[in-house]
Amino acid sequence: MPLLATIIARCFSLSFSLLAPAAMPLLVVGSVAIDNVETPQARRDGLLGGSATHFSYAASFFTDVQLVGVVGEDWPPQHTELLSSRGVDTSGLQTVRGGKTFTWTGRYEPNMNDRVSLDTQLNVFGEFDPVLPEKYKRTEYVFLANGVPALQMKVLDQVPGCRLVVADTMELWIQNTYDDLMKLLKRIDGLVINDSEAKMLAETENLVLAGHRVREMGPRFVVIKKGEHGAMFFSEHETYVMPAFPTEKVIDPTGAGDSFAGGMMGYLAQQNNFDPVTLKTAMAYGILVASFNVEGFGLERMQQISCDDIEGRMVAYRRMLSF
Amino acid sequence: MPLLATIIARCFSLSFSLLAPAAMPLLVVGSVAIDNVETPQARRDGLLGGSATHFSYAASFFTDVQLVGVVGEDWPPQHTELLSSRGVDTSGLQTVRGGKTFTWTGRYEPNMNDRVSLDTQLNVFGEFDPVLPEKYKRTEYVFLANGVPALQMKVLDQVPGCRLVVADTMELWIQNTYDDLMKLLKRIDGLVINDSEAKMLAETENLVLAGHRVREMGPRFVVIKKGEHGAMFFSEHETYVMPAFPTEKVIDPTGAGDSFAGGMMGYLAQQNNFDPVTLKTAMAYGILVASFNVEGFGLERMQQISCDDIEGRMVAYRRMLSF
Repeated sequence: MPLLATIIARCFSLSFSLLAPAAMPLLVVGSVAIDNVETPQARRDGLLGGSATHFSYAASFFTDVQLVGVVGEDWPPQHTELLSSRGVDTSGLQTVRGGKTFTWTGRYEPNMNDRVSLDTQLNVFGEFDPVLPEKYKRTEYVFLANGVPALQMKVLDQVPGCRLVVADTMELWIQNTYDDLMKLLKRIDGLVINDSEAKMLAETENLVLAGHRVREMGPRFVVIKKGEHGAMFFSEHETYVMPAFPTEKVIDPTGAGDSFAGGMMGYLAQQNNFDPVTLKTAMAYGILVASFNVEGFGLERMQQISCDDIEGRMVAYRRMLSF
Repeated sequence: MPLLATIIARCFSLSFSLLAPAAMPLLVVGSVAIDNVETPQARRDGLLGGSATHFSYAASFFTDVQLVGVVGEDWPPQHTELLSSRGVDTSGLQTVRGGKTFTWTGRYEPNMNDRVSLDTQLNVFGEFDPVLPEKYKRTEYVFLANGVPALQMKVLDQVPGCRLVVADTMELWIQNTYDDLMKLLKRIDGLVINDSEAKMLAETENLVLAGHRVREMGPRFVVIKKGEHGAMFFSEHETYVMPAFPTEKVIDPTGAGDSFAGGMMGYLAQQNNFDPVTLKTAMAYGILVASFNVEGFGLERMQQISCDDIEGRMVAYRRMLSF
């Protein structure tokens, strides 16, 4: 029976990739930033950063991405060009005259997991008012990157016909805008959240319990990101853990979570499907794309890879998990 | 091809369980203790503890176990009876007249991962001189539970014909008896070690790098235990991670690592095989047995389960990892 089940599952998964309908575009709204990153080995300034940026680049391997964000006049045009070269539609990227781009400076501890924010200048992102270009309002796959829950809901108001909305959030909003966050959770399909955030939101140290508790707050599914330990998935009928892809080369973990979400959502939009089987494969793609993201500063490693590299790692990942 | 590979792999795995040769006995040498455990929820005194004990009980689901350890006159006979009832051969359990059993008292932090040793009384274990009963000296599968490397090697001297030796170690021996530990590592086939210990031994925060570095110190394979995050395997040709089985019910993590090793080694001895395919399945059994171990104080939860429960969890685990 397990053998038969495996065969059936494989056939389904094969038919999905062979008969996949046209990929759907994917909308992301979130931060676009300039990062200065210090690790025990090196320091790099002026990196292309921000959650929407890492998300967009990761998702661009799977489908067309529409990016909504804001930058200042100091934003280097080559950053926009890099995104455009990946097919990311940047017509929703507003530039504020006389404004400065959101800038984050941080330092990673030797474990490359814990980090200290040395300087955070929200600049134009502090006044961000996400107004979607008309053509984006019919997009059916939407990702609300980490941001003020009220603004995330404002985006939702502009995409009434969307089919799948997934959001991210962080400690700041759990602590400062709890009521708004609760409202948001009731309007989204999925929440992607860090392990520490899940524990805080669910008020428990047990991640399995946390995942289910957060799911009961509204979303149909919850994904808990565990960094180097992979990710967990929770829906009404499923609970599972998928390990990270083991890599010796961790250069800069910044944006790993957003890359994960980008890979996951990109695959779902590409497949135009979010049934349980597709969601699980999407989780795996998210994990693999994130494993490349951490292998270089900012988006440097991502610029070196192709879809073939991701597929190659997928073969190794499937082999790793089968026994 | 992946489908075909899956079918072939499955057929092999089926043939292994159907055609498995007679299970081999498994020898374990290590601590037998009385534990007093405090968690945020409860406190329990006088628990049957010790690494060799948790190992033996876990392995007893798979094969016959030979236990070598030492206790004092205060050792409750019902503890020995419990092990005997599982088919564990306790004829190698020495009792020191007038001595007291090794006693450990510890408290777990709310995250149930970090713990504080409140009191450690080595007692008779401090003078432990492992002398194997004659009939144990021909045992081919051997586990050296955490202990002084010199004593672990003394055991090895007594089992010259063993086919598979796996050892555990800890920070104390890395720091205090480094040279002996290095000698030990060159004499064993496998090392099972915690993540923090691996990092210390390999002098790196990256676990993938740590696994390979420790392997280069001698053992043919290294297993890094990551607690709630599962375990990693390293050999010359393989690197993989297997997640823990997600459980909401973490009552007492004491002995989880030893249960893991017991499940793993028990399966290898049962199969009388330690090729890569069998090792991977053994890792999974170790993870599953450990997931039961943490669901109760001491060995309480383990006493409630049967082989069917482990197999049931294996079906769920395989399903969790397939996509």
